[in-house]
Amino acid sequence: MVTAPKVPEERLERNLNFFEIELPSWGFADTGTRFGKYRDPSAAITLQEKLDDAAQVNLYTGCCPSVAVHVLWDFPNLASVNDTLKSLKLSGVRIGSINPNVFQDQCYKFGSLANPDPSIRARALKHLTDSVNLAKLTNSRYISLWFADGSNYPGTAHFRQRRAWFVAGLQQVHECLDPEQRLLIEYKPFEPAFYHTDIADWGMALLLARDAGPQARVLIDTGHHYAGQNIEQVVAWLLSEKMLGGFHFNDRRYADDDLTLGSIDPYQAFRIFHEILLFEWETGSKAEIAFMVDQSHNLKIKTEAMIQTVVTAQELYAKASLVNYEALLEYQRGGRLIDAEETLRQAFFTDVRPLLEEWRTSRGLPKDPLKAFRESGYLEKVIKERAGRHFGKDGEETYA
Amino acid sequence: MVTAPKVPEERLERNLNFFEIELPSWGFADTGTRFGKYRDPSAAITLQEKLDDAAQVNLYTGCCPSVAVHVLWDFPNLASVNDTLKSLKLSGVRIGSINPNVFQDQCYKFGSLANPDPSIRARALKHLTDSVNLAKLTNSRYISLWFADGSNYPGTAHFRQRRAWFVAGLQQVHECLDPEQRLLIEYKPFEPAFYHTDIADWGMALLLARDAGPQARVLIDTGHHYAGQNIEQVVAWLLSEKMLGGFHFNDRRYADDDLTLGSIDPYQAFRIFHEILLFEWETGSKAEIAFMVDQSHNLKIKTEAMIQTVVTAQELYAKASLVNYEALLEYQRGGRLIDAEETLRQAFFTDVRPLLEEWRTSRGLPKDPLKAFRESGYLEKVIKERAGRHFGKDGEETYA
Amino acid sequence: MVTAPKVPEERLERNLNFFEIELPSWGFADTGTRFGKYRDPSAAITLQEKLDDAAQVNLYTGCCPSVAVHVLWDFPNLASVNDTLKSLKLSGVRIGSINPNVFQDQCYKFGSLANPDPSIRARALKHLTDSVNLAKLTNSRYISLWFADGSNYPGTAHFRQRRAWFVAGLQQVHECLDPEQRLLIEYKPFEPAFYHTDIADWGMALLLARDAGPQARVLIDTGHHYAGQNIEQVVAWLLSEKMLGGFHFNDRRYADDDLTLGSIDPYQAFRIFHEILLFEWETGSKAEIAFMVDQSHNLKIKTEAMIQTVVTAQELYAKASLVNYEALLEYQRGGRLIDAEETLRQAFFTDVRPLLEEWRTSRGLPKDPLKAFRESGYLEKVIKERAGRHFGKDGEETYA
Amino acid sequence: MVTAPKVPEERLERNLNFFEIELPSWGFADTGTRFGKYRDPSAAITLQEKLDDAAQVNLYTGCCPSVAVHVLWDFPNLASVNDTLKSLKLSGVRIGSINPNVFQDQCYKFGSLANPDPSIRARALKHLTDSVNLAKLTNSRYISLWFADGSNYPGTAHFRQRRAWFVAGLQQVHECLDPEQRLLIEYKPFEPAFYHTDIADWGMALLLARDAGPQARVLIDTGHHYAGQNIEQVVAWLLSEKMLGGFHFNDRRYADDDLTLGSIDPYQAFRIFHEILLFEWETGSKAEIAFMVDQSHNLKIKTEAMIQTVVTAQELYAKASLVNYEALLEYQRGGRLIDAEETLRQAFFTDVRPLLEEWRTSRGLPKDPLKAFRESGYLEKVIKERAGRHFGKDGEETYA
Repeated sequence: MVTAPKVPEERLERNLNFFEIELPSWGFADTGTRFGKYRDPSAAITLQEKLDDAAQVNLYTGCCPSVAVHVLWDFPNLASVNDTLKSLKLSGVRIGSINPNVFQDQCYKFGSLANPDPSIRARALKHLTDSVNLAKLTNSRYISLWFADGSNYPGTAHFRQRRAWFVAGLQQVHECLDPEQRLLIEYKPFEPAFYHTDIADWGMALLLARDAGPQARVLIDTGHHYAGQNIEQVVAWLLSEKMLGGFHFNDRRYADDDLTLGSIDPYQAFRIFHEILLFEWETGSKAEIAFMVDQSHNLKIKTEAMIQTVVTAQELYAKASLVNYEALLEYQRGGRLIDAEETLRQAFFTDVRPLLEEWRTSRGLPKDPLKAFRESGYLEKVIKERAGRHFGKDGEETYA
Repeated sequence: MVTAPKVPEERLERNLNFFEIELPSWGFADTGTRFGKYRDPSAAITLQEKLDDAAQVNLYTGCCPSVAVHVLWDFPNLASVNDTLKSLKLSGVRIGSINPNVFQDQCYKFGSLANPDPSIRARALKHLTDSVNLAKLTNSRYISLWFADGSNYPGTAHFRQRRAWFVAGLQQVHECLDPEQRLLIEYKPFEPAFYHTDIADWGMALLLARDAGPQARVLIDTGHHYAGQNIEQVVAWLLSEKMLGGFHFNDRRYADDDLTLGSIDPYQAFRIFHEILLFEWETGSKAEIAFMVDQSHNLKIKTEAMIQTVVTAQELYAKASLVNYEALLEYQRGGRLIDAEETLRQAFFTDVRPLLEEWRTSRGLPKDPLKAFRESGYLEKVIKERAGRHFGKDGEETYA
Repeated sequence: MVTAPKVPEERLERNLNFFEIELPSWGFADTGTRFGKYRDPSAAITLQEKLDDAAQVNLYTGCCPSVAVHVLWDFPNLASVNDTLKSLKLSGVRIGSINPNVFQDQCYKFGSLANPDPSIRARALKHLTDSVNLAKLTNSRYISLWFADGSNYPGTAHFRQRRAWFVAGLQQVHECLDPEQRLLIEYKPFEPAFYHTDIADWGMALLLARDAGPQARVLIDTGHHYAGQNIEQVVAWLLSEKMLGGFHFNDRRYADDDLTLGSIDPYQAFRIFHEILLFEWETGSKAEIAFMVDQSHNLKIKTEAMIQTVVTAQELYAKASLVNYEALLEYQRGGRLIDAEETLRQAFFTDVRPLLEEWRTSRGLPKDPLKAFRESGYLEKVIKERAGRHFGKDGEETYA
Repeated sequence: MVTAPKVPEERLERNLNFFEIELPSWGFADTGTRFGKYRDPSAAITLQEKLDDAAQVNLYTGCCPSVAVHVLWDFPNLASVNDTLKSLKLSGVRIGSINPNVFQDQCYKFGSLANPDPSIRARALKHLTDSVNLAKLTNSRYISLWFADGSNYPGTAHFRQRRAWFVAGLQQVHECLDPEQRLLIEYKPFEPAFYHTDIADWGMALLLARDAGPQARVLIDTGHHYAGQNIEQVVAWLLSEKMLGGFHFNDRRYADDDLTLGSIDPYQAFRIFHEILLFEWETGSKAEIAFMVDQSHNLKIKTEAMIQTVVTAQELYAKASLVNYEALLEYQRGGRLIDAEETLRQAFFTDVRPLLEEWRTSRGLPKDPLKAFRESGYLEKVIKERAGRHFGKDGEETYA
């Protein structure tokens, strides 16, 4: 059988030192399904609380120095952003990608940049360019765009016209960018629109990104694919086309379930990391890709789930670092299928937990981040602090 | 080619006279996705408003004399049900099936009848038996049970244990039934639980219904199936097993999209009706099946969407009434595939709209129910009346 | 409700006069599944027989003047093509698109243009350029490329390398084209490769076509999509991008089932036609798109199934011709969802069979093509003629 | 975090000693897709060759003492079965389950036990009872029934009638069984039938098995499920219902791809084993379930792929043996989701390869079965021996 790969320890350590993954502020707040929300008594509400929670995850894992923020939820009032930013206490984390919201307001019922009404398109555009400006204030490199635009019934939307409106809008957003900023365009085949979504797959996202301008890239959310679709192949194509900008990581089983990374199909997450690391090994340079978490753990305790996620991501990335590329490519060239496959599997099935413990120790981090977090008493503390809030009907929060 | 079937006018008229479909009270209220709700200014809030709207649909279509109610939403206080019932003004419609809710309260985070905590199981059971008692007060034949019980992550739930708890709970609910009542058990493969749902498919629902007792049947929600699954075959099997109790009609494209009936795949809805009508023709007696609508038209105007749905259901049922059974069975027996298929298709592609106009005229109904409703001014009236309400954050309604 | 569209008779007639759909030679031969073939005693074996059968379909339907041919199966010996062509008796049909085969020979086990072995890639390229040359001999405008290249197991194929090989190969094929020829590139998400297919979706096909050269376009096979994917939206995008080259029509329920067009979801086929006709109405010019049938009706009698298909295609195209575009666009612009949707549905549910009978009569065609074909005695004749052949084990045909 | 489970070494060894998996004779012969077969020069053709190859797999892995046989392919002439059996040289393996074939002959075009023609139904029944008799001669406990019966187009088959024919036929087969024999009934949602399959899911298989008689059970083929379906939950339900008879193991990504076990989603195969082992731990007795391989590795070398499969199955079974049940159940009861999940994951991510090497050594088996097989020279030997055969067109084999 394939000889177990001699652990390329140096490569592994280099990769782990490099590996960073951004946490989403909304991952610390209560979320739910259309059937309701089950409350987590430790859930954050304010942006400061979300940053505090994220800082904890970073404190114990050492690889999440930035936090993605959501414009409407975290900065409801764009006029007073400067005051908000000044008042924030950042405990070792920084503001990361900026995520505008052009789907929640009632005006977006029939779309945002693709709304048939030009005044709504203008309003969406304004929010997007405001978000770019916010990104300048926070020194954020990435503006992540997800559009809910779509339709529920055949005949109700004009596909080509809406595509043209998207091109026009995205070009205008792109014009506002600073040279070092990147526009990430996300795709999603369905939900909340059920018949058609304007940016439904990676092909549409890529074409729109090309039309938008040279600083636009595609954002892959792992949960936004059809059943059976080969995500790692899409990764490879976007790398080839120099259009891969970043990831929203999560897992799913049926639709866009927003489950914690690697919880349903860990082998697939491993293969995605492998595809990126192989590209970097072959080209000799790091791919510039933003790794971000985007999960909605309805039932798990937020902070704990986030630590579990980050640890899982590190483990799968570490496993992917162990692939013996020389052997792999030789087996592929020779049509030695079982050997090629086993080269991947040997790496996946290597138990990297001891290696990660070593790496953590060497960085002054606790061997078991979740255990250390649990022993810290943080959770109990915030549950007590945050208990002062009352929940209204349907989950509206009010302060006593 | 197959001779177009001589329209069996008598059969068509008999079928149309028989055809009734129940409207859901919640179909007149604002609903949405997990990303939010877009408001319909005419949406109903109170049970009385929902009944008023349903009465309008019945007024113009003549085939929806009953309204399904939802216990938590329509009867939040079971203690005062009698007063509520007395105060209701029923304009030609009656209360139909009773739908308990054991998923919305925070206590159901880990399940209802399958919750590992016996006190929560008891609480769910109490709600269910209370709902049966409510059904007695409203003379409702059907108690429709949908359970959200499930889990999001491998390893977190004990499948067999939870199944045993379901059997025990359902048997106790069944014991409370009056002899003429029916317990309908619904299945759903996913959502809101993403890894496993305790009653995931028709097989599980059938086995639980048999365990529950002789008055339990399976409820088919057309949207609750896997992609590619043959729903009409499930209908046929449940008919053979004498276990088909009713339908929740809607349409879908990807997941459980709750779109209006026949909007995505009208041919499939037609085939479901065909399977039932063929069974009735062969056995010489009506199958006792409750036809109910269960849709969540996020974007369409509620009352108009419901009229559209009912008219579509009637049209597809009328088309299914036109199938030439003698020819069909002979073709099937002889392996004459194209002829058998065309026998179905000829019926489906027959334009039944003129026949339905005739039938409506003969019953004193408007030829075009939607047009008549629009001309009535009802919508404008309720928009004005219902505009007095203010919407709080996240959609909480308050009255001025 | 929406007023039934005043039948735009002139437009309908113009569209029907224009509508042509190409038949595949392989659709008249025995085909099957991986579990075996069930024999049709009337199935064609030789190219002449296939052309004869196709001519029959054209004789009775009047809209299939060309026949797609398959290079390996119809022209096993490219050296003697001229003799073959001279010997053919064409009864009113001409040779249409040329379909090379680079998947059947044993050498293609690990791919054709993406094979790691350069000598196999060269062999595939030779077959493809030979096929272009054949197309010149037959005056065929279209060369349709479908590649089975892919892999069955993670790790066994190098996605980016294989993509680069595809680009190189397709460019060389493109260089051989005459100016008026078109290269059609087909995509398919799975089968016969099960883990990855090199050209898996429309995005990959579009990018490869752009890389190949200005005469390359994308070919849509309706069965080659993920469950739930919106094909008509892909059609619209390819029209916008000026990259839609043609269609392989068929229907499916689960995978790539190659069922007869419109047999499972006729409304979807209608919407595809609608998207094209709307584009043409808006731009004022015909889109240059090759309509082709690609079905593998395992159980139906070949010629009859083909007539059924062509008649269905005409009916759905005729229905799509009835859409009231002015109304549709106004409703779309105004967010009048139900009205927009009903504008489409009214057209779909209009019974066009009488209109088609009229059109056929006016063209000297039989009102009911299948009935006319059945009465002609052709089927009985060929069954007798073709019965002289013996079938070997596993379906190999030999002549007595 | 969850403490890594103290390896329950004794349980692991007991489980490994118990673990046996049956090999399919057809897994050593050339197979393919509907697009053709790529040849493996070492592929077996005769039953003797298949048994020889299977014996090799057993020789190096020590856990595959039996071989499933296929009646038509391995015993084309049931009349001379006794002679065939006497002539076989069994090198340490025995004949295992008997698999009848009622789908390959032309007569089964419209079905076998559900064929509208009573004479075909009788013929199928005869083949099935002959197969039971063969099973008696080979002392085979299991008769595995897979039916391809179904239809390709709506309207062409009578669901309820066909179900009734199945009940009647299966009862007659059941009557022929010896008391210790078991009838396994397999389900499959699609292929080769594309519109409906008569035994489409586990619910249908269970109901038919109950109707057939007390010795009938359900057979799960892991590839025969809808996308997203939770197979381990089906396993749990069948265990609860005492109706789980056996498995056909393989893996898939899209349809029924027949890939090697654990090659696409190893975590899922692990969870299936876990569900069984948990049941056995709780009930204190072994579940009587036949583990069988059913793969069609088109491109891998047959014997090597089979060794890879068996080793993978052992590894995943060993991993599942490491789950800490006491902890798991306590976490499940307490709603400690992350801890429960991690209990499963810790076992899955434990590297069991060293443990398996130990176990193999203790049994006198080579540490690395695939390496040992490769070094044995068997493959080269049979390639030389089997090279004397010529392949006809379309893959028909003939002997020189």
